[in-house]
Amino acid sequence: MLTLEMIQDAQVALRGVVRRTPLDPASKIADNLYIKAENLQETGAFKLRGAYNKIRSLTPEEASKGVIASSAGNHAQGIALAATKQGIKSVICMPAGAPISKVEATKKYGAEVVLVPGVFDDAARECARLAAEKGYTIAHPFNDEYVMAGQGTIGLEILEQLPEVEQVVCPIGGGGLISGIACAIKSLKPECRVIGVQAAKVPSMYEAVKAGHVVTVPDGDTIADGIHVLTPGDKTFEMVQKYVDEIVTVSEDEIAGAILTLMEGQKTVAEGAGATTVAACLYGKVDISTKKTVCVVSGGNVDVTTLSRVVTRGLTKAGRIAEITTKVIDKPGSLIQVLQVVSDCGANILSVNHEREDKDSDVGACIVSMTLETRNAEHVAQIEEAMESKGYSLLSK
Amino acid sequence: MLTLEMIQDAQVALRGVVRRTPLDPASKIADNLYIKAENLQETGAFKLRGAYNKIRSLTPEEASKGVIASSAGNHAQGIALAATKQGIKSVICMPAGAPISKVEATKKYGAEVVLVPGVFDDAARECARLAAEKGYTIAHPFNDEYVMAGQGTIGLEILEQLPEVEQVVCPIGGGGLISGIACAIKSLKPECRVIGVQAAKVPSMYEAVKAGHVVTVPDGDTIADGIHVLTPGDKTFEMVQKYVDEIVTVSEDEIAGAILTLMEGQKTVAEGAGATTVAACLYGKVDISTKKTVCVVSGGNVDVTTLSRVVTRGLTKAGRIAEITTKVIDKPGSLIQVLQVVSDCGANILSVNHEREDKDSDVGACIVSMTLETRNAEHVAQIEEAMESKGYSLLSK
Repeated sequence: MLTLEMIQDAQVALRGVVRRTPLDPASKIADNLYIKAENLQETGAFKLRGAYNKIRSLTPEEASKGVIASSAGNHAQGIALAATKQGIKSVICMPAGAPISKVEATKKYGAEVVLVPGVFDDAARECARLAAEKGYTIAHPFNDEYVMAGQGTIGLEILEQLPEVEQVVCPIGGGGLISGIACAIKSLKPECRVIGVQAAKVPSMYEAVKAGHVVTVPDGDTIADGIHVLTPGDKTFEMVQKYVDEIVTVSEDEIAGAILTLMEGQKTVAEGAGATTVAACLYGKVDISTKKTVCVVSGGNVDVTTLSRVVTRGLTKAGRIAEITTKVIDKPGSLIQVLQVVSDCGANILSVNHEREDKDSDVGACIVSMTLETRNAEHVAQIEEAMESKGYSLLSK
Repeated sequence: MLTLEMIQDAQVALRGVVRRTPLDPASKIADNLYIKAENLQETGAFKLRGAYNKIRSLTPEEASKGVIASSAGNHAQGIALAATKQGIKSVICMPAGAPISKVEATKKYGAEVVLVPGVFDDAARECARLAAEKGYTIAHPFNDEYVMAGQGTIGLEILEQLPEVEQVVCPIGGGGLISGIACAIKSLKPECRVIGVQAAKVPSMYEAVKAGHVVTVPDGDTIADGIHVLTPGDKTFEMVQKYVDEIVTVSEDEIAGAILTLMEGQKTVAEGAGATTVAACLYGKVDISTKKTVCVVSGGNVDVTTLSRVVTRGLTKAGRIAEITTKVIDKPGSLIQVLQVVSDCGANILSVNHEREDKDSDVGACIVSMTLETRNAEHVAQIEEAMESKGYSLLSK
């Protein structure tokens, strides 16, 4: 069973190994809001803490054989660097289709990467097989007291950096991070609320707490790949039941909106999982009107090639980009007239696509699709109203 | 003439008004490299420093009438917030097509925004007209001792935060930022090198120093809009001549590569101008092999809608995305064969476009365009070689 002493012990062991990440006010986002920036941790995520603490707990015999894990994400890099820092061999099994950038980063931190044909489950099976064959110790990503204790050092740092904290918001995937943080916070300052956040598409711990026992949720597609866990751990479930005040969920659009807000307001890059906590505060899932609230931004390893899609989604959600499609008569001047309506409303035109409805007819209707830069959702509504009042029917509505 | 005393005086005045931004090692990018993060300054750029220092120098009569500036960028937000903080009216003239996000941000900081039909020059003319009519003081973005002195406080902070600094790299647009920083550094630690960076597309100060007098360069298109200045100031030119050791230039691809590196390595968002200094170090324009080097990342106000284009450009430059186009015979299995070659080389396929060359013919050649995720430039070359050895001609080469 995880205890405060184990977390305090981990803090001593991690000194000089992990970065004490900054905790700063996010006043551009909201009053009362503070960010604990674990995206600035080495390897770009909090995982190094738990991984290092786990590996230092190995017996000399276990250490001499090495550790193994299956992961295509932050756990892989955390284990790789933690093992290398302690002079221990590490092996990471990844599905063969894993992003090349993740494979390269994990190798760079010193791990041997085994690319396993198939999906994640195939990599996990190969991991178990290799562990049995070679005597490697399997490093579980969350359901392990040493791992939880390592992550819990974030809770101790929060209390040191902002002793007047009243509320801590933390992402939940398997539950390792929040178990450690909640144990630390509730042991030392029981009146401080601890709130967990999950992606609404994969609400495994949320459903488990509701059911009163560990459950497995159906798979869902989420940009928060760092907390994409269908079955929480039994040890983490117990901690969450004991220490966490509430679990809330956020939608994909809300996560995208939070990533965008963090980039624009705080100039910081968060991955989907890391941005869920800020999303919960931004979109009214957590009340920050009166309580000094720390959001744990757990990581920043978002794939830059997908970041652009997320940004577009976030801008659309905020009403700062709008797609409007209408039909005009295919004669000279028609396009100019519709663009004039938009321009009169003060929107900037980012792109226009103008196509004949039916390629075989020479005269007829044209479809005009416009991407507009707009101020907010009210502005979009105002443009749509103006267009309809001029007789343009909106096809995308 | 700008003096160290004016900068020290500004530092006292700015205490509690501007943020003392962090100066941190960027060890994930390179040894010896440190970043002075002015992208984390209030308003997202260093401009607030000079603007505040200028406005506090106004006479009571000038202050009662207010300040005016023409800008669609960081200067606008700096003046707006600096004036508001001192209870003074501010008016900003912007071209009517300015990004809505910039207009909104400037209004939010308390300025009255005048949208002027036409381009930037029209906004500047309207600014001069309004100043004459209403008695506003025009706040110049760089060619002003008080502005330079305000920016120079960054130089003092660098010396306080990293006394052992041996080299400071700073972007140059009009020259206000580097004039202040160089004056501070060279006055207190003359042996520390100060290097300026310009976009190769708009090398106005670089050419002026070469010519020995202020020159105007032809307009060029650059993503570093913050340093898009065709004619440097005469006062800033004099400072640069006196204090700056060297000016180097960076290409658009290099700037994009640096923005990407800062996002992935440092999890921080820099605008084009701010990233030029890191680009200069990354791409061998500044030697950082032996000297402790501070790069001033001057701002982070990059338009998120354009960030995705920059990221794609940066990934291509680094050989992490490749576009390969070839011709195959239009029969079943042809596409699979070409994809197999790519897959055997270990590249991930991001997208494929497969089109008949001539839409009128039923059988013939097809054009296959692939976007691939690759490891680096050598990996791209290896894939191209493999394809050619299998008889595929590369159309994009």
